[in-house]
Amino acid sequence: MFTGLSAFPLTPIPGNGSVDEKAFASLVGRLATAGVDSIGALGSTGSYAYLTLKERARVARIAVEHADGVPVIVGIGALRTRQVLQTAEDAQNAGAAGVLLAPVSYQPLTDDDVFGLFEEVTANLSVPLVIYDNPGTTHFTFTDELYTRLAWLPQVASIKIPALPDDPAQARARVEHLRRLLPETVTVGISGDAAAARGLHAGCDAWYSVIGGTFPQPALALTRAAQAGRHEQALEESQRLQPLWDLFAQHGGSLRVVAAAAAHLGLTAHRNLPLPLRGLDAKERAHLATVIEQLQLTT
Amino acid sequence: MFTGLSAFPLTPIPGNGSVDEKAFASLVGRLATAGVDSIGALGSTGSYAYLTLKERARVARIAVEHADGVPVIVGIGALRTRQVLQTAEDAQNAGAAGVLLAPVSYQPLTDDDVFGLFEEVTANLSVPLVIYDNPGTTHFTFTDELYTRLAWLPQVASIKIPALPDDPAQARARVEHLRRLLPETVTVGISGDAAAARGLHAGCDAWYSVIGGTFPQPALALTRAAQAGRHEQALEESQRLQPLWDLFAQHGGSLRVVAAAAAHLGLTAHRNLPLPLRGLDAKERAHLATVIEQLQLTT
Repeated sequence: MFTGLSAFPLTPIPGNGSVDEKAFASLVGRLATAGVDSIGALGSTGSYAYLTLKERARVARIAVEHADGVPVIVGIGALRTRQVLQTAEDAQNAGAAGVLLAPVSYQPLTDDDVFGLFEEVTANLSVPLVIYDNPGTTHFTFTDELYTRLAWLPQVASIKIPALPDDPAQARARVEHLRRLLPETVTVGISGDAAAARGLHAGCDAWYSVIGGTFPQPALALTRAAQAGRHEQALEESQRLQPLWDLFAQHGGSLRVVAAAAAHLGLTAHRNLPLPLRGLDAKERAHLATVIEQLQLTT
Repeated sequence: MFTGLSAFPLTPIPGNGSVDEKAFASLVGRLATAGVDSIGALGSTGSYAYLTLKERARVARIAVEHADGVPVIVGIGALRTRQVLQTAEDAQNAGAAGVLLAPVSYQPLTDDDVFGLFEEVTANLSVPLVIYDNPGTTHFTFTDELYTRLAWLPQVASIKIPALPDDPAQARARVEHLRRLLPETVTVGISGDAAAARGLHAGCDAWYSVIGGTFPQPALALTRAAQAGRHEQALEESQRLQPLWDLFAQHGGSLRVVAAAAAHLGLTAHRNLPLPLRGLDAKERAHLATVIEQLQLTT
């Protein structure tokens, strides 16, 4: 399950309102139809941190109901361990095939805090878990030593790593180094979409993908090429999408851009982010629309 | 209200359990008896980010009930604007004299996000507000331009700034620069306890104090000396407390240290932090106990 393309849909949340469940169900159904390998509900792109535990339980249920049998991985991160435990139980009750856990922080966390969190959560879990390393949102930096301690805990099945070095040889060396540290059963998945082709070329088993959640076709094209060993083709597809990666960098991450893109495609209402997050302004949206047309991402 | 010593008590939270309301009430009462100028309930030291909105509403009520007329400033930060609005209403209903708002983030926030948040919240507020600038927990960095935009919003009464430059002349220049930017009605309060004496010497009106919430006596001694213009004495008191500041730096902030100190003084149970945050280990607690004895902080 933790290989190939894992597509992370938005959870559309209009400003100060509640989840647009209908639009979310459609987004999930669309990914199942496209044939992604798994669906990552309530990831960072799915704004899990902004929802109540009740809202998250409902969203997890909707995801599983509309995934048409495609495995759903549900984000269970929260500031308190007891919230994570509750969310894990809710996700399992909803039928999640796996869970994704980031060490969300307010007070900076120590390695022992994070190990204790994962130890307690995995001891209470009956589905596999993805370790979610996203320093841009959690502000926690994993060391290789901590990866190694965590990877042997029960249920740990994959690590979602942040972007790799630009240089292909260095990227490959990094993935090979991780492989030596980790049990054979634990897969390594790349995140940071701009690094996806490079990551798959370097030996990553999975792409935990933001654009896959809104533009599954190009993400699948890139992934299938890489899986078939056609890495040049995968890298070319990534290069073709460079204007998108540039927009991600320009807007401090991918969320605001894919949210505006989903609205542009008519998949969600225009207001689809939880305040205080503001979407792109009119000029930025117009520019994004041009990029989407030029890249032929409209179908 | 936003001058002098604002003391921030812990909210004791045992691991995966609920707030120890009795211990919290005692902590607040102790501050009122000591004669602090205001009480900052549910600040970062009060672990606001780890509590549900219901728990926060209860804690705000308990704080006001046990503050014996000392003004209580309640932290209202949350990831979603709608949660902040609800928390602000709950704080006002509880009798808060003011509120404290930090731009808590998961996805990185833009200046426009933060301005929009403060604009919406202050438009719905009938008590004064402190802008809470704490990049160590929010990972948001205020610019002077944003300070200036925010300071003219209705209800804005104070800014809680992070530590100042070490050099006294530079610190003074910084505070004087802020003064020129801000309306006369907006006070400037220093946070980062190690910088308190320097901050008050540099012209800050208030000290938003972590140790004041657990050790009100030395915090009051320092503040009263500074308020009387006896800055040498205030700086000496701060130097005397250097072993505490060293422990704060060593433990990635003040929270774990004051939590262990409060337990050592018998003010809370030993387990008083929300998991995944772990307290100091036995050896660290023993060292802290020695420091507390040597500094005569036991009464």
